[in-house]
Amino acid sequence: MNCEKSRTVEVCFTPKLFSEIITRENYIVVLTDILRATTSICTAFANGVDRIIPVANPDEARNLKEAGYMVASEQDGKKLDFADFGNSAFSFTPERVSGKTLVYCTTNGTRALNMVKTADQIAIGAFINLGSLAHWLEARDKNVVILCSGWKNKFCLEDSLFAGALASELIKSKYYLAECDSAKAAMDLWKLAKDDLLGYIEKACHRHRLKKLGLDDVIPYSFQMDLTQVVPVFDGHEIRIGI
Amino acid sequence: MNCEKSRTVEVCFTPKLFSEIITRENYIVVLTDILRATTSICTAFANGVDRIIPVANPDEARNLKEAGYMVASEQDGKKLDFADFGNSAFSFTPERVSGKTLVYCTTNGTRALNMVKTADQIAIGAFINLGSLAHWLEARDKNVVILCSGWKNKFCLEDSLFAGALASELIKSKYYLAECDSAKAAMDLWKLAKDDLLGYIEKACHRHRLKKLGLDDVIPYSFQMDLTQVVPVFDGHEIRIGI
Repeated sequence: MNCEKSRTVEVCFTPKLFSEIITRENYIVVLTDILRATTSICTAFANGVDRIIPVANPDEARNLKEAGYMVASEQDGKKLDFADFGNSAFSFTPERVSGKTLVYCTTNGTRALNMVKTADQIAIGAFINLGSLAHWLEARDKNVVILCSGWKNKFCLEDSLFAGALASELIKSKYYLAECDSAKAAMDLWKLAKDDLLGYIEKACHRHRLKKLGLDDVIPYSFQMDLTQVVPVFDGHEIRIGI
Repeated sequence: MNCEKSRTVEVCFTPKLFSEIITRENYIVVLTDILRATTSICTAFANGVDRIIPVANPDEARNLKEAGYMVASEQDGKKLDFADFGNSAFSFTPERVSGKTLVYCTTNGTRALNMVKTADQIAIGAFINLGSLAHWLEARDKNVVILCSGWKNKFCLEDSLFAGALASELIKSKYYLAECDSAKAAMDLWKLAKDDLLGYIEKACHRHRLKKLGLDDVIPYSFQMDLTQVVPVFDGHEIRIGI
């Protein structure tokens, strides 16, 4: 063990396992939901959204729509009738979101956000902001728990691959050790997948679910690395660019 | 999709995720706890034990010891003072167990057994009986859920590798499809590890926990394939050789 490496990276494959994490002090959670919530949130900030208010259920989203907010809300991948947007990153163009406040409701991602309020901070991670996120984390003296939103509490490949990619990036620095078995498995899956990520992701269940819903146009975009430098951070109430 | 393939193989990385499995009908659970409960149970049957009564906690084990049973009981990998055995497969020699009834209490494995009573049957799986277990499953017209005991409800590499090995074996037959992401991830990890299983398992956390406790002598044995043809089956009360 390298004694200089004083921070841990842990991977949690689904929100249901979050209560089992070992890291309990001085940690930042990185939440990821590659298809599609966290990729979309990063896109919205890249395109100038001012803040995002995540909500856990469609009723709350509908109430905020009636109160005058711009609302993104979908269920099982489909836009709800009252909403301005569904969950596709492509909806959040600069023309529509720049300078605005967006209420955001999703099946998987938002539920996870509300589970992790014990963390010191919650950062929003996706392939499209991976490099900047890694640098942002390195600049903070905190342990890292990467929380995969999964699909209805089940393990999912796309989020686990992101966890492996971020953990692999972090352990290249002098700060981080990845000791838990889930981090090691995620990094090995990433190693297997990274040279042909879209080919590998062909086998993911959720990719096929989105295809059936006609929502898979966003997939190649969601697996591109480092398209933006934004690091959105949730403060327990709203998401803003991390400082 | 091959339409002849009518049975599913699902992998559940920890007991805590068992309530999330998709398979709900006509299924057999394969329980695995490679280090060390299910490897030890298979060894005891290979060496002639008549039946094993799994119990969930040490108090129950102590009561049964006082009632005259032979008892294997450990906590966090250490034999409890009142017990005849700890959990090491090497304790269960033919001289000591042949023809006998054994009460068996472990931290991880037994707890998992009691969670899965909705399954049609619960088979006990380890690398040492993998080939026979696969044939036994193929002879039954059931879906398969491979349940990893994990370590205190966390994902663990050794059980996940077994799940990948068994799933890979089953999908070679004409019966099984592995559609869930966790089965695909487990099979990929197995593919990575199988040519140097002991080298790969060096990185598993639990392997190091056992080493610290001086209990790692059983590790090379636990990763040998097909040492026995027994398929132990739990009927909700006791474990016997499956018929």
